[in-house]
Amino acid sequence: MKIMVGGTFSPLHAGHKKLISRSFELAGPRGRVVIGLSSDAFAGRKSHPVMPYAEREGALRTYIQSLGTETPWEIEALNDRYGSALETDFDILVVSEETLPAGIEINRLRRAKGMPMVEIHQIACVLAEDGRWISSTRIIRGEIDDEGHVIGWE
Amino acid sequence: MKIMVGGTFSPLHAGHKKLISRSFELAGPRGRVVIGLSSDAFAGRKSHPVMPYAEREGALRTYIQSLGTETPWEIEALNDRYGSALETDFDILVVSEETLPAGIEINRLRRAKGMPMVEIHQIACVLAEDGRWISSTRIIRGEIDDEGHVIGWE
Repeated sequence: MKIMVGGTFSPLHAGHKKLISRSFELAGPRGRVVIGLSSDAFAGRKSHPVMPYAEREGALRTYIQSLGTETPWEIEALNDRYGSALETDFDILVVSEETLPAGIEINRLRRAKGMPMVEIHQIACVLAEDGRWISSTRIIRGEIDDEGHVIGWE
Repeated sequence: MKIMVGGTFSPLHAGHKKLISRSFELAGPRGRVVIGLSSDAFAGRKSHPVMPYAEREGALRTYIQSLGTETPWEIEALNDRYGSALETDFDILVVSEETLPAGIEINRLRRAKGMPMVEIHQIACVLAEDGRWISSTRIIRGEIDDEGHVIGWE
């Protein structure tokens, strides 16, 4: 299966890691994973500061290498929320709850262009120790660390 | 992976078959598939006539047996849109575009109960020969057959 997944990954937290590791599981060893990574210009619209592209890409590569996967993969820069998802054929778009609307929109636009629609796989969100979601905003605010541990708890 | 999928399947058409076959692929041989099948009372709310439960269950069993799958499976009667999806632990809910909202609602209700959320996998819709979706309503109206061939076309 050819999988597409995307994000800004600043910083790469436990929820992102699940999104990536499940993408590789869904692809299987004979599949392929394309990870769209927001460019600095595109990510600049976020409400919180974003780490430079090279740094975010490095963390992503280190994490993927730690999976020891045989599945071929590549990282492509995203200059908008769609990347190459409106141009190429693939099987499954992997999304989080936050990116599900973009996934639905991608299928609507693919259909309007006469392209085959893709399957959409939404992973379950990862909860922090305090039972709330892990998000980059919470990490940047210093509430939790990138694994979801509450800062200041034992 | 333990998969849940549901529907009325009246009649079982090419779109439903893809929903079921993909559920088995996602489960894998060591997984499990639970297929929720609307009871006659629950299905009676549909705008079109529905075949009796025993007949719909028979068609489903025949189709699953034709897959030659090793994955264990069971059919459970659905008396509402949730079935046992709010009671049991499982990994992935497989939905169509039509049933995605029920899937999102199931996760919302699971979370409210303090249960782990599940992954949601939306299959791509199957198009009929005329480029429009296959649906039970269109089959019952006599526009297309259950494989999506347009009735009256060569």
